[in-house]
Amino acid sequence: MSSMRFSDRLIEAVERAGAPACVGLDPVYERIPSCVRDGATSTTGAIEAYCQHVLDAIEGVVGVVKLQSACFERYGAEGVGVLQRVATSARHRGLVVILDAKRGDIDLSAEHYAWAAFDEEQGVGADALTVNAYLGADTVEPYLKWSAGRDGTRGVFVLVRTSNPGSDGVQRTSLEGGRSVAEMMAELTARLGRDHVGEHGYSDVGAVVAATKPGDAAALRERMGEQIFLVPGYGAQGGTKRTVRALFHERGRGAIVTASRSVIYAFDADDAHWVDSVRSAAEDFADQIRALQE
Amino acid sequence: MSSMRFSDRLIEAVERAGAPACVGLDPVYERIPSCVRDGATSTTGAIEAYCQHVLDAIEGVVGVVKLQSACFERYGAEGVGVLQRVATSARHRGLVVILDAKRGDIDLSAEHYAWAAFDEEQGVGADALTVNAYLGADTVEPYLKWSAGRDGTRGVFVLVRTSNPGSDGVQRTSLEGGRSVAEMMAELTARLGRDHVGEHGYSDVGAVVAATKPGDAAALRERMGEQIFLVPGYGAQGGTKRTVRALFHERGRGAIVTASRSVIYAFDADDAHWVDSVRSAAEDFADQIRALQE
Repeated sequence: MSSMRFSDRLIEAVERAGAPACVGLDPVYERIPSCVRDGATSTTGAIEAYCQHVLDAIEGVVGVVKLQSACFERYGAEGVGVLQRVATSARHRGLVVILDAKRGDIDLSAEHYAWAAFDEEQGVGADALTVNAYLGADTVEPYLKWSAGRDGTRGVFVLVRTSNPGSDGVQRTSLEGGRSVAEMMAELTARLGRDHVGEHGYSDVGAVVAATKPGDAAALRERMGEQIFLVPGYGAQGGTKRTVRALFHERGRGAIVTASRSVIYAFDADDAHWVDSVRSAAEDFADQIRALQE
Repeated sequence: MSSMRFSDRLIEAVERAGAPACVGLDPVYERIPSCVRDGATSTTGAIEAYCQHVLDAIEGVVGVVKLQSACFERYGAEGVGVLQRVATSARHRGLVVILDAKRGDIDLSAEHYAWAAFDEEQGVGADALTVNAYLGADTVEPYLKWSAGRDGTRGVFVLVRTSNPGSDGVQRTSLEGGRSVAEMMAELTARLGRDHVGEHGYSDVGAVVAATKPGDAAALRERMGEQIFLVPGYGAQGGTKRTVRALFHERGRGAIVTASRSVIYAFDADDAHWVDSVRSAAEDFADQIRALQE
């Protein structure tokens, strides 16, 4: 793995690909093409083959892939083995790998999660991990410490404002003084990231900020000047171009928009050329996001 | 697995054991007795052997065991395999198994985590899971739905007030109107649990409420009348008897106090009878907690 700081590596991967777009790989057995399922000897075998084909399809189209840990953990130890091999394969293809596992713990447990997510031998070998910081700053620090021992090559994305409807009940609640809970989390994230800023001016501590919450975009961007945003919810979930533009920094930088199902399931069940269909969908998605940068 | 509702099964396991005490199994290779490490052919092999010995030691002393997922995930697919076998063994010994994995996701991802935590064939087969609800009610509902399809046999513990110092920065923050963030989370938890109450009057939706935050105990208990509290932080971390008493319901019910390191590492490195030492520590701990009920 390159010894370049995570945020710099991410920015450069996005610039090489030419669009701040990330494909989310959320494999669900029932949605895998029948030709792949029929050719496999087990459920996890089918998922692994499907993921490898999707990586074939998106390689060179986007610079970043997000792996949904739950889809693999669903199948216990076997599933985690598939996750490790898919992540390794993605890394070898030059993709930056974000593990979407939304971990949240402290002390030694968080340190163990850092090993599990980042270590290339026994863990997933991901470049970054999504982290839930309801437990406070102690939840995030162990990952940064782990990374600091490896030249800052790993990063985290703190869940600040998520795309689901139910998130409003917690994240939009107003605090005394008028800030929302999400804005408090944004300030915590900015503070944690301050000492981990790379040459491109961005921190290894990024934030998840959804495209589905237009009213919150400006206030969160204002509070997180050095954060790269990982942006779910664009398109299918209702996120608009206008909101994504508000989440970008100057010159369309500082945010990476993700799409999962709209890309990885962009085919009919009996589509023999489904890998090409996924590639086309990924290209269309990258084009759309590129256009938003202007 | 019994088809009895989770909360009823938990209450009865605690009453059978005679104390609302839970041992936390957080295996860390470096702290395992040298005789166990020397007898194993791999790191994960040593962890598995150690966990089985600890289960031998606590069987019949406490009714509940909490497995720290991170300690196993640290070793990738192999570690998850150990976790699955240790959980199965604990279940077969009649212990109620809480998987402390602090998961937090929505929709299909949360459903996948439910399979991973609860399913006895491909998952861990745990009776309950700790859940981080920063993403809102949608984070918790998929677990309840999964459990509803199995006679309500599984439960969750929502992280409301955690024991670490840094949690104050988020959880103690005041909302408009004066409630704290933790109190808001308590109200969400109570609401989610309302339709899942068993014969003993407790919900399958419990809450993690630490013994280290004395100022918060009464307000949280008041807001969560039907919740069983899982209580970390007693003893070593500074939680007091007085705080634990405030977290109990009437007649010392409704809360289960956990201890991890103070029990599972209660031996010197060269203690040949370390299993007996762990058993004694578990007995002492259970006695202490029993005394708090009076």
